[in-house]
Amino acid sequence: MQPFLVMDILEAANAMGTPVIHLEVGEPDFDTPECIQEAAIKAMQSGRTHYTHSLGIPELREAIARHYHATYGVRVDPEQVLVTAGSSPALLIAFGVLLDAGSEIIMTDPYYACYPNFATFIDACPRLIPTRGDGFQLDPDKVKIAMNERTRAVLVNSPGNPTGVCLDPEHMRGLSELGLPIISDEIYHGLVYEGEQHTMLEFTDNTIVVGGFSKAYAMTGWRLGWAVFPKDLIRAAQKMQQNLIICAPAPAQWAGVSALTEAGPDVERMRLVFAQRREIMLDALAASGLQVEVRPNGAFYVLVNMEDVTDDSYRLAFDILKNTGVGVTPGKDFGPATGRYIRFSYANSEDNIREGVRRVGEYIGKLR
Amino acid sequence: MQPFLVMDILEAANAMGTPVIHLEVGEPDFDTPECIQEAAIKAMQSGRTHYTHSLGIPELREAIARHYHATYGVRVDPEQVLVTAGSSPALLIAFGVLLDAGSEIIMTDPYYACYPNFATFIDACPRLIPTRGDGFQLDPDKVKIAMNERTRAVLVNSPGNPTGVCLDPEHMRGLSELGLPIISDEIYHGLVYEGEQHTMLEFTDNTIVVGGFSKAYAMTGWRLGWAVFPKDLIRAAQKMQQNLIICAPAPAQWAGVSALTEAGPDVERMRLVFAQRREIMLDALAASGLQVEVRPNGAFYVLVNMEDVTDDSYRLAFDILKNTGVGVTPGKDFGPATGRYIRFSYANSEDNIREGVRRVGEYIGKLR
Repeated sequence: MQPFLVMDILEAANAMGTPVIHLEVGEPDFDTPECIQEAAIKAMQSGRTHYTHSLGIPELREAIARHYHATYGVRVDPEQVLVTAGSSPALLIAFGVLLDAGSEIIMTDPYYACYPNFATFIDACPRLIPTRGDGFQLDPDKVKIAMNERTRAVLVNSPGNPTGVCLDPEHMRGLSELGLPIISDEIYHGLVYEGEQHTMLEFTDNTIVVGGFSKAYAMTGWRLGWAVFPKDLIRAAQKMQQNLIICAPAPAQWAGVSALTEAGPDVERMRLVFAQRREIMLDALAASGLQVEVRPNGAFYVLVNMEDVTDDSYRLAFDILKNTGVGVTPGKDFGPATGRYIRFSYANSEDNIREGVRRVGEYIGKLR
Repeated sequence: MQPFLVMDILEAANAMGTPVIHLEVGEPDFDTPECIQEAAIKAMQSGRTHYTHSLGIPELREAIARHYHATYGVRVDPEQVLVTAGSSPALLIAFGVLLDAGSEIIMTDPYYACYPNFATFIDACPRLIPTRGDGFQLDPDKVKIAMNERTRAVLVNSPGNPTGVCLDPEHMRGLSELGLPIISDEIYHGLVYEGEQHTMLEFTDNTIVVGGFSKAYAMTGWRLGWAVFPKDLIRAAQKMQQNLIICAPAPAQWAGVSALTEAGPDVERMRLVFAQRREIMLDALAASGLQVEVRPNGAFYVLVNMEDVTDDSYRLAFDILKNTGVGVTPGKDFGPATGRYIRFSYANSEDNIREGVRRVGEYIGKLR
């Protein structure tokens, strides 16, 4: 199993002894909204500290089902919803339900660093389709060519990490027509700044949609996520949850109910801040001569091609850190296609974004 | 993957519409002690709602290391400690680190229901050693005979679920001398009522010791556990955690620090209540003609052999529920060796224990 290279950068940054501007981070810098915290405190104080139903408390599963109808107009039965301890265990269970040893799952290159490891953990095999030449869009025709008798699923992530790009609805439709189950990681939903966001559930029922509270609700440390399963798979998913995880944290589940029913204004406030920061980062990158090939419209990441100055983004990220005091993420973490890219995160203050990008731009300018 | 049969009983119990005495439950009926809740609330309110270090916050890892020295006199380096979202993910990672597809792990029959499923999830194979004839003790000589070139580990659980029995120190020593890595599930430590409790770390460093807060600290719903790894395995374990789980819930981790440093008197108070209930249950079973073959000295379970009235404990558990209004767990959940046993839990009030056992005894008497 591969480690996160960005963790090495982070450790080196922390060991420097001088202040570092962290543009490598993958989580909101906001604290969890107060109404959500209050719901968790109330739950604790009223003794809701015991195991819950393995699928999650009914109140939260119903709120999640309503959320899909209110946000996308799709009908989800609360009985299809599995509440998990973060979206990572949801992905583990989705992989576990669809794949077995020797089978394959199709995914993009670049990919969120953990995806291939979920597959290899259960001796399945990730099959990568490079998307660099397609504006980081997964082309259904290319999936069709990559499919074989061992293929069990295709995995998409929109808005994507590390690309910040949303999958086009036309591509979503095309993928949904291939007849393959689709694992759709929608953890960055709620953080879309241009155009409409779409769930895979609008296009097909043959999908496991993974969502969660970490990003849009600033709840990374609570470990609360979910997955919507097709009705014929939820029982298998539940059995895996019972065995491997038991249930999601109980106070966090009550916090999740509040997040979906009360925290709308907080989520919108944070989204607008991210939207503003995105503009600032894109402007700062352009002003610094750092090229963004595909304009990101979601999440809080921007990929920059650095192939004119490096053939190894891991080494470059260390050089940037040492020479500028700015932490960035090597594109190598996300697959071969972005081995010469750097990922910038705008989950930081406007001042830090401006100053961090300025310093990196100046340093890269010297390397050219 | 096998479901928990006890869940079917629980659902049937909840669907009955009449009050049921729950002697099937596997969690303390106590609320989490107040000092622990307060620490979680303080953590939330001071913004500790973000991702933590993947191994866990240093304060908790240090407290866990100190706990091993204070309780058992063994030295554990905080660098060996992985904090997880409950002891179940700790087991998943322990299995993942030691086993691969096609390899084997030796475990007792009876076993905690999930153990074989952790193995099969990664295409490894559980190899069962029946312990019914050995007082539910795992005999090192029998392990030796069962070992082959595919064996990667042996798994023990003391105090054990469903047996309530602690592994003898002589057997622990014997197992430690076999040269196999030992996964030692010590989740019920802190709930021992006769004799001394021993950690496998007293006998060997070639062990992954799994512990947690759920049982002794009444924290089932918090999802907080840990594992102590040998120094040469902690990095592999950390990578699995980063990929599959990311980190344990942040507020719960601060609650865990309080549990280990402040909740000692609460834990002892609850332990004494369980000790008293154990006496009451054993007396009630004896008075009702229900035979306990091996006197349990830990956890909160008692196994009763019902082979004179049934060859199917699943069916018997339903019959007991319908005829007496008492929920019990079919021994079938825990392997073939206890397929004709019933597990009683004394994580309930003294009155419920007395009345529940009386009713079951009366019903079984009629079947004889």
